[in-house]
Amino acid sequence: MIGDVPNIEAGQEFSTRRQAHEAGVHRPLQAGICGTKRTGAESIVVSGGYKDDEDYGDVIVYTGHGGQDGTGNQVSDQSLADSGNAALVTSYLEGLPVRVLRGYQGGAPYAPATGYRYDGLYRVTSYGSKLGIDGFLIWQFRLEAYEDTPTLQAAQQPELPNTPAQSEPAAGAGNETPERITSTVQRIVRSSAVKRQVKVWHDNRCQICHLRIDVPGGSYSEGAHIRALGSPHNGPDTTGNVLCLCPNCHVMFDAGAIVIEDDLTVIRGDQPAGTLRTDGRHTIDLECVRSHRKRWRQ
Amino acid sequence: MIGDVPNIEAGQEFSTRRQAHEAGVHRPLQAGICGTKRTGAESIVVSGGYKDDEDYGDVIVYTGHGGQDGTGNQVSDQSLADSGNAALVTSYLEGLPVRVLRGYQGGAPYAPATGYRYDGLYRVTSYGSKLGIDGFLIWQFRLEAYEDTPTLQAAQQPELPNTPAQSEPAAGAGNETPERITSTVQRIVRSSAVKRQVKVWHDNRCQICHLRIDVPGGSYSEGAHIRALGSPHNGPDTTGNVLCLCPNCHVMFDAGAIVIEDDLTVIRGDQPAGTLRTDGRHTIDLECVRSHRKRWRQ
Repeated sequence: MIGDVPNIEAGQEFSTRRQAHEAGVHRPLQAGICGTKRTGAESIVVSGGYKDDEDYGDVIVYTGHGGQDGTGNQVSDQSLADSGNAALVTSYLEGLPVRVLRGYQGGAPYAPATGYRYDGLYRVTSYGSKLGIDGFLIWQFRLEAYEDTPTLQAAQQPELPNTPAQSEPAAGAGNETPERITSTVQRIVRSSAVKRQVKVWHDNRCQICHLRIDVPGGSYSEGAHIRALGSPHNGPDTTGNVLCLCPNCHVMFDAGAIVIEDDLTVIRGDQPAGTLRTDGRHTIDLECVRSHRKRWRQ
Repeated sequence: MIGDVPNIEAGQEFSTRRQAHEAGVHRPLQAGICGTKRTGAESIVVSGGYKDDEDYGDVIVYTGHGGQDGTGNQVSDQSLADSGNAALVTSYLEGLPVRVLRGYQGGAPYAPATGYRYDGLYRVTSYGSKLGIDGFLIWQFRLEAYEDTPTLQAAQQPELPNTPAQSEPAAGAGNETPERITSTVQRIVRSSAVKRQVKVWHDNRCQICHLRIDVPGGSYSEGAHIRALGSPHNGPDTTGNVLCLCPNCHVMFDAGAIVIEDDLTVIRGDQPAGTLRTDGRHTIDLECVRSHRKRWRQ
């Protein structure tokens, strides 16, 4: 399952991978990523298995799966065709939460002293490839803790006698502390099970302009409520009130540059611009279409 | 100015509009909306001046400006050409925060008993037109309090003796309590002064596909960092590291379906697809372009 496991809260510790498996927090006993391209990643384990990993607590730079020999060295390129890596791409594209389990092998200051600790839900905020330390292609995923995920405190370093005064920070990534980026939000695209269903039916192809945005590892679309939820529009949260749109058509539809007639003709500005693409499994609620149209064309 | 006024916190009360004016919380002495199409809305006053307003505390359905006679009746249609209404459209399109001041005339349960109260920052989450109670076209804007804006408590109703037991809620919008919608977020588009500068230079026209998304009352684009901020990419927050893109090209660029060559040729998939549109005021940082390209094409 995606998201929090019932009755398991962030901070809970497990002595072994098997205990975490039995609790349903991270189901595989060996693999670091649990999930598939179709469902997204349920959970990952941060346990120092990849030397290119970076752990800042609230932010993790997590190396994808594959290309290692048995001793932790990278001996070939990683690929997004790997099912764990593809799962993390889906988590990025769909905005799905990923459970993070940290293992004792992950190193200071965020790893538990022993065993494994569940640290709550993170979001994949970017990804990309680079040449790793061993000279092979690796894929890396930036994960950020959700705002309501408890903030991890770095374990205190033991105070050593005669420690030289800290003058300059040492070089290297381990000394940066990238914060979650909190600038103003221009636009938020929300996700829900209802929207995901509509997007699956349409295979991420825009019902208005027919574009499907294909990207390395997946494709992208947005679920758009026809009649907005909440006051004053009070649309229902049903598949009949959701369209599968590309981001551009979504912006235009939400701001009234596109409306739809009862016969599903698309009106862009004042001009007809084709017909809404439909699917036999997806019945459009015409009351919602009318309500949206009236919001913009009296 | 947009955003919080220094030294004024949510909850601060003002006896008169003039006091709120002098504090810089809401500068006009009469108008309910302060702002312009170019800058967005700085602040609004919720004070019962429009009978179609709905106030749920954290959510406000706010009627735009115009079309009233001197007695609070709607006698003609409202328009997005009105500068206050256009300002709220800009706030929506740019994701800008709006200061909310509530006046005593606004009515229970969220208005102050006397005078005016500053209630913090809200975001415009949707807008549209409808026929108002008086039969003329009005524009309405849904505003939602930011997550970190203090939640308003409804004023307690005085307990009356022999009040009949509350069996059924009375009909009407006043009894709904729409919550801020908190489903999973699929995609967040962030805003910043640097990004806004680049969007202004390009007048919201996409530097990759040349599309400008025009909607009633404005146009829309997104600022996209070329080299992502934060680890592992560590891009600079400068205009040279930002492109003005339509949402579709932004998704493709962030997920590596589009990269840019050093001569600014756009590569979509594996094929050249034109040249990045430039502007004399906007110098692209080629180090960032290279870094983005290497993230996707080794």
